[in-house]
Amino acid sequence: MAVYTEVSDDDLAAFVAQYAIGASLSCKGIAEGVENSNFLLHTETGYYILTLYEKRVARDDLPFFLGLMEHLAERGFTCPTPIKGRDGEALRELCGRPAAIVTFLDGMWVKRPTPRHCQLLGEAMARMHLAGADFAMVRPNNLSVAGWRPLYEACAARADTVKPGLSAELGRELAVLEQGWPDDLPCGVIHADLFPDNVFYLGDRLSGVIDFYFACTDAFAYDLAICFNAWCFEQDGSFNTTKARMMLGAYRRVREVEAKELAALPILARGSALRFLLTRLYDWLHHPAGAFVKPKDPLEYLHKLRFHAGLISPAAYGLD
Amino acid sequence: MAVYTEVSDDDLAAFVAQYAIGASLSCKGIAEGVENSNFLLHTETGYYILTLYEKRVARDDLPFFLGLMEHLAERGFTCPTPIKGRDGEALRELCGRPAAIVTFLDGMWVKRPTPRHCQLLGEAMARMHLAGADFAMVRPNNLSVAGWRPLYEACAARADTVKPGLSAELGRELAVLEQGWPDDLPCGVIHADLFPDNVFYLGDRLSGVIDFYFACTDAFAYDLAICFNAWCFEQDGSFNTTKARMMLGAYRRVREVEAKELAALPILARGSALRFLLTRLYDWLHHPAGAFVKPKDPLEYLHKLRFHAGLISPAAYGLD
Repeated sequence: MAVYTEVSDDDLAAFVAQYAIGASLSCKGIAEGVENSNFLLHTETGYYILTLYEKRVARDDLPFFLGLMEHLAERGFTCPTPIKGRDGEALRELCGRPAAIVTFLDGMWVKRPTPRHCQLLGEAMARMHLAGADFAMVRPNNLSVAGWRPLYEACAARADTVKPGLSAELGRELAVLEQGWPDDLPCGVIHADLFPDNVFYLGDRLSGVIDFYFACTDAFAYDLAICFNAWCFEQDGSFNTTKARMMLGAYRRVREVEAKELAALPILARGSALRFLLTRLYDWLHHPAGAFVKPKDPLEYLHKLRFHAGLISPAAYGLD
Repeated sequence: MAVYTEVSDDDLAAFVAQYAIGASLSCKGIAEGVENSNFLLHTETGYYILTLYEKRVARDDLPFFLGLMEHLAERGFTCPTPIKGRDGEALRELCGRPAAIVTFLDGMWVKRPTPRHCQLLGEAMARMHLAGADFAMVRPNNLSVAGWRPLYEACAARADTVKPGLSAELGRELAVLEQGWPDDLPCGVIHADLFPDNVFYLGDRLSGVIDFYFACTDAFAYDLAICFNAWCFEQDGSFNTTKARMMLGAYRRVREVEAKELAALPILARGSALRFLLTRLYDWLHHPAGAFVKPKDPLEYLHKLRFHAGLISPAAYGLD
């Protein structure tokens, strides 16, 4: 649920007038996403998404995110495309926040992905990785291994209030991951937050990918590892190997995956599980009482972390 | 902010298939309204609003609300029009809630209404009252004078925690209003909740009225009295007579207002102020800690109540 900033009709009209998209006919806050304020904007020329970037998104990162979306869209990858104003700029200010208008993307995200959805995702992810290959900007992944210890330390003292023993277990995991984290994998632009609510489908096709506000420069295989966690576990906690195999197989038909990338999948998936566990744990422990956004359960990811930690080979992900 | 119920893609597809509006292309929760879950639905034939009626709307009242919207729309009054399914029914169920699809209405509500907006509202309100004249269904206003004492009694013991002396003052007001409330005014269908966020404008015209979920059969002049409170007070608490005069003048050019209706305006406005004060006070005192929807300040309406209570004639509303 997210509309943190109310936009008055006067402010909106003045903002929209800076674009060649016609006058605003309607603007409704969207109850989706948790980081920014999003509005569905109808103008005389069509439907758009207006986003006001709230404080969790660093202003300095916005040119990377918007530039990436434009770059990918130009190469035929369906994602929201930033609309430039009459001054040629896509990023400006509204109500004291950085703000941008992007194209509206049809499609719906699936709450219960099937193996076929995972297959379509694998293919699209590989196409996204290739399309981003010549994107000139770089943004380090500040939520990769080097970012986890500060998060851990901000949570360690109270982690056991969520689950006894959690603090020690996460400390051990963190040490293992810091020790063994690979640094020689093929890198490029990754999405880094490809959860089901960021992937749209229409009928039997994937109609687009949204929410590039965690995108960064990191190992391609880490995007796959994030998706194993986000797409391939069932409600009962079991890992659906068919889904992982379909995703990875489709990915490999588009982009060649090196042997060392495959070998690294278990530790990448384990690290990705720790990353989401730590950020959820942080939000869980630090959200104000009566907060607007209900924090997500961190322990869902403890289960996933343990699964990957227990693997001895990537074959468990359905590698042929 | 309001999306209380999440609708899965499968449930949505099955629901939409009951209508001849094409397949669903997109469905986004709208962060507006506080009573129901609203979604902006894009299908192959256009844009619609999908509403799931949550528990504050009585299921038995829905045929009245939907029937009224259809009736008004047929008579050329711009309001959301319920879409009937292939079975001829506009009301069905989704996710265990009553649900309906209505047409999407362009326009934006104004946060700072001008006298011109009030004039356009007055004209539209009168047209709405006339268009509803031959609507066959009747729904008593359960939030009129007979409904206030139960609300008052549910709040009286703790009202002074909001403001010392509030309980006694409201008790005195209630007695005065119960004693003097008029019962011989021209009646018909009224909207009963014509706040600025329920009235859409596009440029210099009023493009539509939404949210008929408090509509009922009551005195026409009571709708005017509600709007005096909702539209004619400035942020600093002053009453803008120009706005009231423009509203009432435009109304009277469309529908003839009887002398006794004009004479009753002060007590109707006073009662309307008590009605919104009491419902807001009830929500203020009874909302759970950390609740989803932030309750509105009841004391805004104490000021309005005192203003109307202090009038000796309706001339203060700008009557010529």
